[in-house]
Amino acid sequence: MKDMFGSPGKISGLVLRIGQCSFAAASIGVMASAHGFFNSTAFCYLIASMGLECLWSFGLACLDFHALWSKRSLQNPVLVSLFVVGDWVTAILSLAGACSSAGVAVLYSRDLNYCNKTLPISLPCTRFQIAVAFAFISWFLLAVSSLVMFWLLGAV
Amino acid sequence: MKDMFGSPGKISGLVLRIGQCSFAAASIGVMASAHGFFNSTAFCYLIASMGLECLWSFGLACLDFHALWSKRSLQNPVLVSLFVVGDWVTAILSLAGACSSAGVAVLYSRDLNYCNKTLPISLPCTRFQIAVAFAFISWFLLAVSSLVMFWLLGAV
Repeated sequence: MKDMFGSPGKISGLVLRIGQCSFAAASIGVMASAHGFFNSTAFCYLIASMGLECLWSFGLACLDFHALWSKRSLQNPVLVSLFVVGDWVTAILSLAGACSSAGVAVLYSRDLNYCNKTLPISLPCTRFQIAVAFAFISWFLLAVSSLVMFWLLGAV
Repeated sequence: MKDMFGSPGKISGLVLRIGQCSFAAASIGVMASAHGFFNSTAFCYLIASMGLECLWSFGLACLDFHALWSKRSLQNPVLVSLFVVGDWVTAILSLAGACSSAGVAVLYSRDLNYCNKTLPISLPCTRFQIAVAFAFISWFLLAVSSLVMFWLLGAV
């Protein structure tokens, strides 16, 4: 059970954390480079939630790296409980960010037709959609980590 | 462990299911009564996801009621696995519906200012917000059930 895929202090866990952090950072980068994103609260919230996820995953990636380097185990009940709470809160906040931004991106592109290039107020919808897609990938990787952590909590 | 709050075949489990189903139905009712909701894909998706949650929770409420009535146990591994998968899928879909609708509702009321009563295209934003609030309450109750089910799966 302790050698489960994605558990803390393992190579797979480190790869998952790096993936989460990279996709969250990519999502922030693409969204921040789209002009007019600050007109929508949902897009600003996406940047905030992805920022939180990026910080959290980066911190845990450093911890995993340290554990791999010094060959220590991170699997004690207190640490795993902390990881579970942090992972779940971050996962719910980033899913909320990704979904609310997806709702607004779909509203702009399909319902209000603001992405029409011939309009004077045309918005960079492709960038919004790419940022949302990165946010969903990042959330998916975090959800995998969260499930593994919750499962570990029952085992340690 | 088998007498945990909210586990299937218990009064608390039945109450949780009835709560989920009622709030999901209330959310559908309020959203469907708001004119112009069909102009936004996110609001239509909210109705679809709340419909799914309502059906799922109603089905499980009937099963809980039957188990209480006939004094049977629902806690065998196959049934609990089925409940876990169904609960998690439904919970993620309903959180996605609630968040995407919340994103659009905030966009309408704060960012685009479409809720201004003096405008000719004024939208029933209060109804949208109430529907979203009911969806979040319904999701929260479902999330409690999902966590209990996941915990039980490790115990049965």
